[in-house]
Amino acid sequence: MTNGTLVYQHDEEIEAWIDDATWILTSSFIIFTMQSGFGLLESGMSSKKNEVNIMIKNVVDVVFGTLTYWAVGYGLTFGTGEGANWFTGVGSFFLDPDEETMGTEFSKFIFQASFCTTATTIVSGAIAERTKLTAYIAFCLLNTVVYSFPAHWVWSKDGWLKKMDVVDVAGVGPVHLVGGVTALVAAIMVKPRYGRFSDDQVTIHGNSVNAVLGLFILWWGWLGFNCGSTFGISGGKWKIAARSAATTILSSCSGGVMAFLLSFLLHKRKFDVQLLVNGILGSLVSITGICAVTTTWAAILIGAVGACVTTFGQIALVKMKVDDPVGAVAVHLMGSLWGILCCGLFGLKDDIEHSFSHHDGLVWGGGFYLLGVQTMAAVAIIIWSVVTSFIVLKLIDLTIGLRLTLEEELYGADYCEHNVELPPDVKEYAESVLRR
Amino acid sequence: MTNGTLVYQHDEEIEAWIDDATWILTSSFIIFTMQSGFGLLESGMSSKKNEVNIMIKNVVDVVFGTLTYWAVGYGLTFGTGEGANWFTGVGSFFLDPDEETMGTEFSKFIFQASFCTTATTIVSGAIAERTKLTAYIAFCLLNTVVYSFPAHWVWSKDGWLKKMDVVDVAGVGPVHLVGGVTALVAAIMVKPRYGRFSDDQVTIHGNSVNAVLGLFILWWGWLGFNCGSTFGISGGKWKIAARSAATTILSSCSGGVMAFLLSFLLHKRKFDVQLLVNGILGSLVSITGICAVTTTWAAILIGAVGACVTTFGQIALVKMKVDDPVGAVAVHLMGSLWGILCCGLFGLKDDIEHSFSHHDGLVWGGGFYLLGVQTMAAVAIIIWSVVTSFIVLKLIDLTIGLRLTLEEELYGADYCEHNVELPPDVKEYAESVLRR
Amino acid sequence: MTNGTLVYQHDEEIEAWIDDATWILTSSFIIFTMQSGFGLLESGMSSKKNEVNIMIKNVVDVVFGTLTYWAVGYGLTFGTGEGANWFTGVGSFFLDPDEETMGTEFSKFIFQASFCTTATTIVSGAIAERTKLTAYIAFCLLNTVVYSFPAHWVWSKDGWLKKMDVVDVAGVGPVHLVGGVTALVAAIMVKPRYGRFSDDQVTIHGNSVNAVLGLFILWWGWLGFNCGSTFGISGGKWKIAARSAATTILSSCSGGVMAFLLSFLLHKRKFDVQLLVNGILGSLVSITGICAVTTTWAAILIGAVGACVTTFGQIALVKMKVDDPVGAVAVHLMGSLWGILCCGLFGLKDDIEHSFSHHDGLVWGGGFYLLGVQTMAAVAIIIWSVVTSFIVLKLIDLTIGLRLTLEEELYGADYCEHNVELPPDVKEYAESVLRR
Repeated sequence: MTNGTLVYQHDEEIEAWIDDATWILTSSFIIFTMQSGFGLLESGMSSKKNEVNIMIKNVVDVVFGTLTYWAVGYGLTFGTGEGANWFTGVGSFFLDPDEETMGTEFSKFIFQASFCTTATTIVSGAIAERTKLTAYIAFCLLNTVVYSFPAHWVWSKDGWLKKMDVVDVAGVGPVHLVGGVTALVAAIMVKPRYGRFSDDQVTIHGNSVNAVLGLFILWWGWLGFNCGSTFGISGGKWKIAARSAATTILSSCSGGVMAFLLSFLLHKRKFDVQLLVNGILGSLVSITGICAVTTTWAAILIGAVGACVTTFGQIALVKMKVDDPVGAVAVHLMGSLWGILCCGLFGLKDDIEHSFSHHDGLVWGGGFYLLGVQTMAAVAIIIWSVVTSFIVLKLIDLTIGLRLTLEEELYGADYCEHNVELPPDVKEYAESVLRR
Repeated sequence: MTNGTLVYQHDEEIEAWIDDATWILTSSFIIFTMQSGFGLLESGMSSKKNEVNIMIKNVVDVVFGTLTYWAVGYGLTFGTGEGANWFTGVGSFFLDPDEETMGTEFSKFIFQASFCTTATTIVSGAIAERTKLTAYIAFCLLNTVVYSFPAHWVWSKDGWLKKMDVVDVAGVGPVHLVGGVTALVAAIMVKPRYGRFSDDQVTIHGNSVNAVLGLFILWWGWLGFNCGSTFGISGGKWKIAARSAATTILSSCSGGVMAFLLSFLLHKRKFDVQLLVNGILGSLVSITGICAVTTTWAAILIGAVGACVTTFGQIALVKMKVDDPVGAVAVHLMGSLWGILCCGLFGLKDDIEHSFSHHDGLVWGGGFYLLGVQTMAAVAIIIWSVVTSFIVLKLIDLTIGLRLTLEEELYGADYCEHNVELPPDVKEYAESVLRR
Repeated sequence: MTNGTLVYQHDEEIEAWIDDATWILTSSFIIFTMQSGFGLLESGMSSKKNEVNIMIKNVVDVVFGTLTYWAVGYGLTFGTGEGANWFTGVGSFFLDPDEETMGTEFSKFIFQASFCTTATTIVSGAIAERTKLTAYIAFCLLNTVVYSFPAHWVWSKDGWLKKMDVVDVAGVGPVHLVGGVTALVAAIMVKPRYGRFSDDQVTIHGNSVNAVLGLFILWWGWLGFNCGSTFGISGGKWKIAARSAATTILSSCSGGVMAFLLSFLLHKRKFDVQLLVNGILGSLVSITGICAVTTTWAAILIGAVGACVTTFGQIALVKMKVDDPVGAVAVHLMGSLWGILCCGLFGLKDDIEHSFSHHDGLVWGGGFYLLGVQTMAAVAIIIWSVVTSFIVLKLIDLTIGLRLTLEEELYGADYCEHNVELPPDVKEYAESVLRR
């Protein structure tokens, strides 16, 4: 009987891994589509002379980001070799596991690589329409490092924030805060587009159908993101995954209602596409950290506030003359700051898997501990991201140069970098400016 | 040994739920993409001055439809609290289940919410290019109620049609018939677009690439819809899901062959995009109710007839001067009527799970019972939908007003409601009409 | 106890099938999206006057290809009835299995049908912009046969290549080599587009955003393709699926890096969209056969070479005046030739499931046996595809005629075959040519 039980236990464990791997891989595939979502969103919000270039930048994310994540990123995040400590992982570089462990290692790698490339792709939108493609390629290679350390802190069992019981289910910190802060640093360093804040600025009319299609793809990708982050479906994880799906959807819906309301009020009864799209995305960012460990009511509140924070964040950035063509900073930086704090406010102790959260948040009477940890996490990640991304971008600026020439910018990156047909009106406008 | 068996049974049950939840959630995510499919389809079939507006309407579906489904729809459909009866569910409003039941409740909610929003989105196409966005928002909020009652009748264990053994695997009644009837009522109430049936009507040339892309997305979403409707994969359900996939694909293929043939004959050897797309969609609607409980041969017949019914339905509607820009009424109303009857004709008793169908259809010698029940279901759902949707739309018309002004309609909703750039030719045409 | 164990074994087997079926069906659904990926890719690389037509051709693939695969293809590939031998399957025509076997049969059918239609869709790109739609419909009906025999040889337990232990995890032979060779034969037979190789040729500017979106959809579809080809997740298959995901992604990333490099060098520091897209696709084709049974390092090498082979293959084709508007021949024929040989070079013996590969490749000290088998497979498939596709296409040319008239070609298939609006500049150019 003992033997039988043992075998049975073993089978059960294997069965659990099979179920979990299916879940992780399927989720990873769904998350992979987010790159096309970001591409369409950014392309649809940029002027027509740069819409191909921004799609290619999202290809660059996958190509160069995944390779460096395989080479060093995965090891820095999850390596448990000699020298691994609270600050960094070591080992598993150039990942090539044996047949015994490859099932779990590769699933984790694929899933995490999609997170890493998402952190990078956030930046591409904020510096659209004026950044060299070669500079962006260099950035993709280096940004893996910017991402991997915070990911280690939050998700590795050795990470210092993990040891303090920080709550971050699906990467509100390492993905969205890192991405948002880096986007802000980059947008400031690369400076505004020509004429963006002058009196006779040209209004940008992108392809809004593509922008909304991008929103839809990201929306569904987010379900993979947040639900896949239970990292399996075995044991009680399927319950948590179901809750993640519900809170994610509900947060985005209440964010959407708020965005419609804000647009109605701020845009004189008109519904501005960028405001709507970014409001919903902001609410999705806000729920990302807490999705598995909160209630539906809290999700609705979190999403509504997330949309507000994003909307007013965008207005503030324009006032501060930070040029972010697609609103990536507002969505990811503002949304994630609110989202990280929400974990401390509305997070519930995880009594099912005892893994996602070990404390109740402030509103459930858990006191200030969790809120304190979350605040510290936010501060640490911001400082890390500002410093490292500044170094990375400065290095690139001094070598390759970040910015297109004025001529290239006016003709558009599609024509200058990809030989795409130059539209006559773009040519005319560019020449008129260059003659001045 | 008894104990061991008990524990084992219990584990097996949990394992089944884990497998089922994975299936339901994955299917729900796939179904979620249908909103972008509907958006692209409708946008691609509308004139260019309204293509952004219709995408936003599909965002409205998700945002407002999911929230109201969470608040009241789920409870009206599946609530088992005090007062629940053959006509309506009660309880589970503002869904917030405890940790014990949340796995099943949330999975069911996510899956069903995607059904409810689909029923609503069908209508957006039929009233495209002339309806106020604010009116449509109000409609989304209220239409949840129109959907939830038929869904209760057909799928809740208390529902009166369920008790009579009605067959409806994936919502041919509550989703497509409700949606199609509501679309017809709405299209009649909102009246045709300016000049649609006059002698000098302007031909609409939408973005057909987007329309076909929308078809593809819907096609794959339908696989999630029909296969996910086995509501799991455990026991014998995986067999039924596999059959659903096969019948769904085969029905759509034979519908496609028929559509190519009809277009060849009706359009003088040319292949009309709208006819092809809607023919295939019509065959998908037709197979929706019966997919899990019929044979491949029957599926092929059902799809071919479904495409015919849709094509001639559309021709009849134009003759009756009902203006449905995208053909939603023909696809969903005609297709679903045929589909509901098909369950009574070609349905097979479900001997695997004993849940989807309890009688053989007419052609398998099961007699007229099932056909009678299906007919009754169709009649009941039509009456319900006509009455409730008329009330809902009348209410909106009397308060907010359904229709754009002539000026807004001519300039297009993209410009008037979303500040999207006004194309010069649209402006010119609009001004020439307004000068008359 | 014996009984108990028996029951348990049985349950375990059923559980395995449930898990596997979920995997196969989910993968099939993902693969289904590849049709829209191919559609957008081809549409985005064609001139604007043919972009709708090429989308419709991808609809034709699904509609007619799936039906014939159901009618005869599945039986020719996997039929085990009387008369089945090393060369062909017999039986299971017009597939309609009983309830006992339908779970496995339908899952396999759905999965394989998506492979078959992919082999066909490859051809649509190579003959774009000058081929009659009716001819293409006939081709879709007949091409199922061209595909089914090689698929039998490689994947049926009776197949002669299977018996020699050929390695082909996800169809590099039956899908990509068959498709690529057929595309080459078709492109030669249908002859170049008007003016393609003359001095005053018109440069084609398609919709590059759609082309890149198509790449993204294909990329993610490939994950379903390659990972789903483990044909399940039970036992050790989940480990192999995870490896397939990792090698597929890494191969495409190194192919991407190579493509960026090649474009930088060949296009004077510009990044040509078609070169980038096809380089990545070529690397995906290259890894298709070996994905489950190789290392990450080998994957990176395979992808990099795959991108080179594709790029220089395309240049060679242009020099040879073979007109392939989207580069399908270079991607699928060159990529798959390299990929088939890679199995013999870098393939690892499958010690987990003992099914995907029974020999080590040359570089792992396995000697020349496997490389010899792979070479023979390539030669056999090429001969088969050249002969049968030539017969099929010749038959169509003699009856329906393959080619549009010059007038139709100049006005574009969108206008001539689908009544899509004729753009003024297309009309003007066409008339100027016709007046000559």
